[in-house]
Amino acid sequence: MKLVRIGAFGEEKPAVLVDDVRYVDVSDVIDDFGEDFFASDGITRILPVVDERAAAGDVHALADQRLGAPIARPHQIICVGLNYADHAAESGQAVPAEPILFTKSPNTLIGPNDDVRIPRGATKTDWEVELGIVIGKRTSYLNTAEEARAAIAGFVLVNDVSERAFQMERSGQWLKGKSSETFNPAGPWLLTGDEIGDVTALDMWLDLNGIRRQTGSTATMIFDPYFIVQYISQFTVLEPGDLINTGTPPGVGMGHNPPIWLKPGDVMELGIDGLGSQRQRVIAPR
Amino acid sequence: MKLVRIGAFGEEKPAVLVDDVRYVDVSDVIDDFGEDFFASDGITRILPVVDERAAAGDVHALADQRLGAPIARPHQIICVGLNYADHAAESGQAVPAEPILFTKSPNTLIGPNDDVRIPRGATKTDWEVELGIVIGKRTSYLNTAEEARAAIAGFVLVNDVSERAFQMERSGQWLKGKSSETFNPAGPWLLTGDEIGDVTALDMWLDLNGIRRQTGSTATMIFDPYFIVQYISQFTVLEPGDLINTGTPPGVGMGHNPPIWLKPGDVMELGIDGLGSQRQRVIAPR
Repeated sequence: MKLVRIGAFGEEKPAVLVDDVRYVDVSDVIDDFGEDFFASDGITRILPVVDERAAAGDVHALADQRLGAPIARPHQIICVGLNYADHAAESGQAVPAEPILFTKSPNTLIGPNDDVRIPRGATKTDWEVELGIVIGKRTSYLNTAEEARAAIAGFVLVNDVSERAFQMERSGQWLKGKSSETFNPAGPWLLTGDEIGDVTALDMWLDLNGIRRQTGSTATMIFDPYFIVQYISQFTVLEPGDLINTGTPPGVGMGHNPPIWLKPGDVMELGIDGLGSQRQRVIAPR
Repeated sequence: MKLVRIGAFGEEKPAVLVDDVRYVDVSDVIDDFGEDFFASDGITRILPVVDERAAAGDVHALADQRLGAPIARPHQIICVGLNYADHAAESGQAVPAEPILFTKSPNTLIGPNDDVRIPRGATKTDWEVELGIVIGKRTSYLNTAEEARAAIAGFVLVNDVSERAFQMERSGQWLKGKSSETFNPAGPWLLTGDEIGDVTALDMWLDLNGIRRQTGSTATMIFDPYFIVQYISQFTVLEPGDLINTGTPPGVGMGHNPPIWLKPGDVMELGIDGLGSQRQRVIAPR
């Protein structure tokens, strides 16, 4: 299933895509794609509703309605740093022995095509196409990759927008450059885990103003998504609906020579196989 | 006012202390001391209710009821690292030029007298008595300390429990050693900002098994609470009910020679002027 949230920011209603242009409304069945939904095995609960309504033709046109992030504001956004060997190289940093973890403020979450706002005082705002993992149940101390797989609700495309000066030149730690408002576009949809196929063979890309800047594949991840979930679960209790950004392949602005930083008017377009694409306009600080 | 939450874990009801042993129940007036409460200026709304009920003798005995954390699970727990010059020295780290920020998982929040559980695989679990700030409204880009003061709902005693091996020996970043379950005891009460007096002159202490280990005062903070809130608001949007742990004075286990690490059966007792005291038993990993 492809879960989407449709409507104005803060007023999104949960729905399920039946194809690229139509959806089934499930907002009368569940409140939102949030912690309670995932904790109560909501994906299984809505499946027959979606099937029945789709069969009955009870569907709606997406048309040009706004898509929100496909999940409600999560309890946590946990990120893995330097998880692609060649991105670590372009950042001038060693490949880590274990996953580096940092967080983003959960209120950075926005829709896939919303504007990304440069923070006040920013000088080095950057992009990062990433595979996001959405957790399906409360869990900790997972023992195996198989247990981790069972703890995952699905996957989502994210742009882990970053302000490098805040991240690395302001006395630490990285969250300083990761938590500005609008810094986590997600979507267009949450693809449930049963439909992802081989999660370690997904092509991913990002264009800035029509020029390809990132080209990568989850095949070159240092730590794969199931290991990441198992690993994080040793350090904290994951909650249903938590979002994990799994790192970015080469080609971020910081990795270019000279570096390329985002400026108002820029347009980012990005995508991952099976997870759709996003388009964000960059706007000036408030 | 002193806000408390009374009842079993996950089922706490909001209440307001009238003295050391009695409280007014406000659970019929508001849902919880959470984001919605603070966002809607809940403190002002419940004040007349509390006054009226206290005057009418409509009060209850605390007796031996469990106290939860005095706030609901927040959107974020943001922490300031190395915010006392002599704690930085005992940690062998330089005094930072700007506040170091890291996060704890919000689900680490527990009551002031709940058990603290050592994580699996932990070898260096440690304590940190700290002044906690609770944010009162959605805010960013605060310009002055005075604006920051107006954005604060109140203050709370916290124990920023830390696993030093996870924090500093596992490829980074610090949240790895800060986010294990039960790692953020808070309470017994939230003291509203109007009653804190001089927040830069509060004595604080922590005993381990009856031996004084931390003795400090907010007077020796490098960055004071109002500056901290103003500073953080430059990097992220603070939400009502967010918790900020403002750093710890000297005397943590890591700072002793040889170091002292927590073990099952240990008892931590800690307090800050005006914010009450806590007592936690340390228990073995799950």
